[in-house]
Amino acid sequence: MTARNTKKGSEIPQGVIARLPLYHRHLSELADRDVQRVSSAQLGQEIGLTAAQIRSDFSYFGSFGQQGYGYRVQELLQQVSIILGLEKDYHLILIGAGNLGKAIASYANFRKRGFIIEAIFDANPLLEGNYLAACLIQPVDKLEAYLDSHTVDIAIITAPSEATPKICRCLVHHGVRGIWNFSPVHLDVPDHVVLEHTHLTDSLLRLSFRLNQQRSDS
Amino acid sequence: MTARNTKKGSEIPQGVIARLPLYHRHLSELADRDVQRVSSAQLGQEIGLTAAQIRSDFSYFGSFGQQGYGYRVQELLQQVSIILGLEKDYHLILIGAGNLGKAIASYANFRKRGFIIEAIFDANPLLEGNYLAACLIQPVDKLEAYLDSHTVDIAIITAPSEATPKICRCLVHHGVRGIWNFSPVHLDVPDHVVLEHTHLTDSLLRLSFRLNQQRSDS
Repeated sequence: MTARNTKKGSEIPQGVIARLPLYHRHLSELADRDVQRVSSAQLGQEIGLTAAQIRSDFSYFGSFGQQGYGYRVQELLQQVSIILGLEKDYHLILIGAGNLGKAIASYANFRKRGFIIEAIFDANPLLEGNYLAACLIQPVDKLEAYLDSHTVDIAIITAPSEATPKICRCLVHHGVRGIWNFSPVHLDVPDHVVLEHTHLTDSLLRLSFRLNQQRSDS
Repeated sequence: MTARNTKKGSEIPQGVIARLPLYHRHLSELADRDVQRVSSAQLGQEIGLTAAQIRSDFSYFGSFGQQGYGYRVQELLQQVSIILGLEKDYHLILIGAGNLGKAIASYANFRKRGFIIEAIFDANPLLEGNYLAACLIQPVDKLEAYLDSHTVDIAIITAPSEATPKICRCLVHHGVRGIWNFSPVHLDVPDHVVLEHTHLTDSLLRLSFRLNQQRSDS
């Protein structure tokens, strides 16, 4: 391998970080298809970026390219995985076993990436004792006791909005450092807690804005 | 009302556009609670932005603020709604009635904002004739006939990845201009089609990256 334009060690810019999951997804697809190497031009075409952009981004991860040869898919995927923190398993819990909770718990992709949901909680007493994706649904009032006796890296909240702030405070109080929230409410967490929001309505509003803007342009 | 620093008419920057759904969400909450007016400082505190940032953003929407009085919630909400294209109803269809499809179809917030799912399609023949959120599930091979005879503004794809590219081509071919895709596949659409992706795994990867980065910082 020939190092070229390697920026490894320098801080990775936000724009590159935002594209890491995209790279991971496409490199995984290539690896699944047993593709050994890929050029920046090919990869760029598949994901809608220029070859130069890809070369510039990848130079932050180390030197995996060779002029005229392309990138070694497996090595590059491994490097992206390490940067993303995917070389280890994460202990997850899910709070809220409604439709969205069911969808999340059943999503095979998460498990494949090392995100294992180990406990599910719900406020509905009728769900108690049921299983969801091979995981027992427990009453939400057992959440505190669970957090006291188990390591939880990431908690996914798919509970109703009005219940979410209290759940979040409980998680933070018990030392959970990663929270993925689907409720359309603003949550305050201390700096050491990483909070990721997925607001489904926001996506639909962005879509309608862009549709609308296009109409007024044409 | 006193106009001040109004930039109305100038093109709205991407950063402001990205915050529009956030503003819409918070102003809706305030309106639901019958709050008449809000200062940029209050609003900023609630959503984690500075008062100056909020004043600068809102100046693109017209003049709704008054020194020492704050913003009129209803008027501002209406203006944000118009910019987002929410003053009209949208005809939606959903393809894929699995767990995620069920969650989306049952999400009351969409209907409240004027996004009405009028038809649901699924490839599973066992689901045919079932109802989901008061909407009949039809076999996916009836999708083309439906598109021929109905106006569809936005199609939501919650189908398996392998089925998604074909569905997308069919939608584009029949003139659907808005597509919201949940499958982790890259889709090519012509420029006149607005495509919004929600990749759930990407959110989890971002979360794990940030968790991991924090650990290596500390």
